[in-house]
Amino acid sequence: MLTHELFMKEAIEEARKAEALREVPIGAVIVWNDEIIGRGHNLRETSMDPLAHAELIAIKEASEYLNAWRLLDCKLYVTLEPCPMCAGAIVQSRVPQVIYGTPDPKAGCAGTLMNLLQEERFNHQVDIVSGVLREECSTMLIQFFRRLRGKS
Amino acid sequence: MLTHELFMKEAIEEARKAEALREVPIGAVIVWNDEIIGRGHNLRETSMDPLAHAELIAIKEASEYLNAWRLLDCKLYVTLEPCPMCAGAIVQSRVPQVIYGTPDPKAGCAGTLMNLLQEERFNHQVDIVSGVLREECSTMLIQFFRRLRGKS
Repeated sequence: MLTHELFMKEAIEEARKAEALREVPIGAVIVWNDEIIGRGHNLRETSMDPLAHAELIAIKEASEYLNAWRLLDCKLYVTLEPCPMCAGAIVQSRVPQVIYGTPDPKAGCAGTLMNLLQEERFNHQVDIVSGVLREECSTMLIQFFRRLRGKS
Repeated sequence: MLTHELFMKEAIEEARKAEALREVPIGAVIVWNDEIIGRGHNLRETSMDPLAHAELIAIKEASEYLNAWRLLDCKLYVTLEPCPMCAGAIVQSRVPQVIYGTPDPKAGCAGTLMNLLQEERFNHQVDIVSGVLREECSTMLIQFFRRLRGKS
C-alpha cells in the first residue's frame, strides 16, 4: 500500500501538469519492475485530440519502452477511474493491475457504471485497487471544476 | 445504403493494407461532408502498439484534419464491430454515426457483447448501422485466420 501511494503521488504530479494547462487534472503512470516506464496527463483540449487521455498517453509510452503491445507485469496508476475508452485500452494492452484514486460517477468503467476491466467475456481481466489517495485525487478535480464554474 | 457501401469499400481497402502486412485485416474511414478525412488500418503488430486499431488511427487523423476533438457531423465506417477501446473512443470523440460490416462475437461492443455506443448513462449516444458489405468484411477475416492456422 505504501508503494501504491508512492506511485499514485507520481500520477498526481502528472495531473498537476494537466491542471497547469487548464486541462481537467487527471494523471497516470505505468510501473514495471518498480520503475516508471510511461507517464501521461490529460491533454484533450491542448492537443485537440479526443484520444489524449492520461492513460492512453502512458500506455503508448510504456509500449514504446518495452517494444511490445502487451504490457505484461505492469501496473497502471491513475488518479481517476478509467472511462470506457481507457478501460478498453487497458484490456487491449493486457495490463495486469490498475490502481486508481477516485471513482468517476459519470463515466467510470472499472466498477462504477460498469466494470470493463473484469468482464469475463473479454480475453483479459484486470486486478483493481481503488481509493489510493482518493481524497487528494478527488479534491483536485472538485477544485478545478469549482474554479471553472466561478469563471463562467 | 449505396453511399454506405461506397465508403465501406474504402474501409475494406484499408483492411487490405493491414492484410498485406500480415495484420488482422480491419480497416476504417471517417467521412465528413461526403469526404474521407481520416483513414486507418490495424497496425498492432507492425507498430507494437496496443492502441493501433483502425478506428483510433482514423479518429486521430480526422481530429487533426478538423482541428477539434469533437468529430461532429462525421460518420465512421469500419469493417468489424468496434472493441471496447474503440467504442469508447467513438463516444469520446462524439462521432454521431457508426457503420460497421460484420459483428465481432469475441469483443464486439456495439451490440454483440454489449452496446457501449448506445449506453444511456454516457454523455453521448451513437446511431449504428450494421451489416453493410458484411459478407466481404467477414470472409476477409475468416480467410486470414484460416491461412494463419494453416501455417502454424
